[in-house]
Amino acid sequence: MGVTVKKIAILGSTGSIGRQTLDVVRAFPDRLRVVALAANRNARLLEKQLEEFRPRMFFCSARTDVRYGGEFLSMEEIASHPDVDLLVVAIAGKAGLTPTVAALQAGKTVALASKEVLVMAGEIVVHEASIHGASILPVDSEHSAIWQCLRGEKSKPRQLFLTASGGPFYRYSASQLARVTPELALRHPVWRMGTRITIDSATLMNKGLEVIEAHWLFSFLFDSIRVLIHPQSIVHSMVEFVDGSIKAQLGWPDMRLPIQYALSYPERWSNSELPRLDWNKSQSFEFEPVDYERFPCLKLAVEAGKSGGTYPAVLCAADEVAVELFLERKIAFTDVPRVVAAALEHHKSVSQPSLDEILAADAWAREYALHLCATTGKNLRYGLGHEEKE
Amino acid sequence: MGVTVKKIAILGSTGSIGRQTLDVVRAFPDRLRVVALAANRNARLLEKQLEEFRPRMFFCSARTDVRYGGEFLSMEEIASHPDVDLLVVAIAGKAGLTPTVAALQAGKTVALASKEVLVMAGEIVVHEASIHGASILPVDSEHSAIWQCLRGEKSKPRQLFLTASGGPFYRYSASQLARVTPELALRHPVWRMGTRITIDSATLMNKGLEVIEAHWLFSFLFDSIRVLIHPQSIVHSMVEFVDGSIKAQLGWPDMRLPIQYALSYPERWSNSELPRLDWNKSQSFEFEPVDYERFPCLKLAVEAGKSGGTYPAVLCAADEVAVELFLERKIAFTDVPRVVAAALEHHKSVSQPSLDEILAADAWAREYALHLCATTGKNLRYGLGHEEKE
Repeated sequence: MGVTVKKIAILGSTGSIGRQTLDVVRAFPDRLRVVALAANRNARLLEKQLEEFRPRMFFCSARTDVRYGGEFLSMEEIASHPDVDLLVVAIAGKAGLTPTVAALQAGKTVALASKEVLVMAGEIVVHEASIHGASILPVDSEHSAIWQCLRGEKSKPRQLFLTASGGPFYRYSASQLARVTPELALRHPVWRMGTRITIDSATLMNKGLEVIEAHWLFSFLFDSIRVLIHPQSIVHSMVEFVDGSIKAQLGWPDMRLPIQYALSYPERWSNSELPRLDWNKSQSFEFEPVDYERFPCLKLAVEAGKSGGTYPAVLCAADEVAVELFLERKIAFTDVPRVVAAALEHHKSVSQPSLDEILAADAWAREYALHLCATTGKNLRYGLGHEEKE
Repeated sequence: MGVTVKKIAILGSTGSIGRQTLDVVRAFPDRLRVVALAANRNARLLEKQLEEFRPRMFFCSARTDVRYGGEFLSMEEIASHPDVDLLVVAIAGKAGLTPTVAALQAGKTVALASKEVLVMAGEIVVHEASIHGASILPVDSEHSAIWQCLRGEKSKPRQLFLTASGGPFYRYSASQLARVTPELALRHPVWRMGTRITIDSATLMNKGLEVIEAHWLFSFLFDSIRVLIHPQSIVHSMVEFVDGSIKAQLGWPDMRLPIQYALSYPERWSNSELPRLDWNKSQSFEFEPVDYERFPCLKLAVEAGKSGGTYPAVLCAADEVAVELFLERKIAFTDVPRVVAAALEHHKSVSQPSLDEILAADAWAREYALHLCATTGKNLRYGLGHEEKE
């Protein structure tokens, strides 16, 4: 029996998702072959990965630091290269945008782990995929769950339920939230991830971005996407169909499972390294409606998504700046939504924006957020709170 | 847009599943048309149903009690009639066996709600369906859940999880179980069903029969079918795939949902009469491994299923007799598994039995169980307990 080898390129191979993708590749040497790796600045780790997987192409922002005999190409060139069957986009931030579009225009299958791509440019990305017959496969555990639940279903579902652990502060009062430190916020109860996504999980901004992604991935109205707090993070998301039947996908929280599903699709592969749920123990799965009041980031994200245009790009960029400032102790945890809200309020959105207009909105939002935080004085919490009331 | 009308025949239309099937038909007059109804003795209700749905064919064991202008046919004739697209088999006991086989031999789609058909004659039924290109669609909520979870999946799953409410006595001690009365046992915490299935739920025999059904419906090894106690009865069953990913189907416990799914398949239909889960409330779903020791019926069923031949028919028949005797207060609740175990132990199984051999085993088991209970004296508990030790 012949097995087809999938040739994959990984953009962002030195990040958390990139490294876990390579873990999956290691488990299936006969089914997956790495043909390109791309990283930003971690030249040392990239070199190691290149040594191990020997791809013919590579990219590194810190080019001169990498010694490797392969062909050096831009990320766009890698993304659209004839040798690539499947592109894994796992770069943080907007850097994934143009390579993703290049891959889709070349008709490739893109396994998408970069939130910003769909949040900032969902309309463009979905349109390019559709006209070029390309596929976008979700890698996020929530979207992978929805994708798995929709598998084989023909009728349009009634509702999506995105589950959220709620992060470490879900039971905090408003005043406790105001005193949250970066150290506290970086301890996520379930998933180990990069710093920005960890803070975004604590503010629930991450769940808001996922709502926008779900809207684009599954062409769902925002009012049909509900967020449920599920502290155990075992049920990764659910779909309700028109007859009221609900399907859920569950499993031990390990990103390698959704990564592998995107790589193995339409097959499923047995992987003894993936942890399994232990049903010899009692299990209890709890769900409750989300509290939008104490976690305004989620509401801001849904509103930005509904408004469309360049609002989601502004949401994303202002949040990134605000999270950085919080990690640098320049603003409080509860200032993050205030900075984002102010940026959205002052932004003049462009409808059906081009990639350039999206990137311009991103740049504007960063500048606005930085400027806002620099000019409202040391005690930003009150400064921003005051501005909101004006 | 033209909608195809499915022509359905219902065997057992006056029973619980039959009546709920007609509820679903009422909700979709443009999509479902009843062409035949069959009942056993409830002639009064059958007459009402015939008046309302005006099918061209009918059957009733109490034929002379029914005044209706339609054509009187046997259940086998109805099952294989050219006018029938889909046959709903919802007759209690072994009476569903020959009509099911007749329908499958005529290449029909059979929505199967009668446990005995697959438990007693799984090998024959699955074989007939396969050689005649006929389909068997499950109606039980657990098997419907598994069927829904398997939808669109190509690779063979690793494991099935059948959920069980545990019945009203799951927390009872062995001595409390021995004192259970018919009145107590007939109060099922979640589902409202016929009397035998309610007692079978309390002894977990019902779950054991479902394990055997799942084995045949999804061609699964018994060791890959696990039973989990899930007191809320919201998650109707789950499937684990080879990659460790698990899909679950959930919903408010209402038999009309799995019935409708079998009738609407491959579509799903919106039905405002079906209750939906309320996610505005907090929900908690608990699971724990089943305790085989206190509920020996489950173990007996799995063993009978594994042994095959005519053992499952004996299991089923001996259980039916034992449940009747329990309801008549002639034996104790904890005698039910003892009667079944004794019948299995004394039975000489036939491998790859014909329908006749299966029916002979059924008759033998009924006689054996009755005789055993009649001869071991009034205090059967001790009589049977004693016999077990010999």
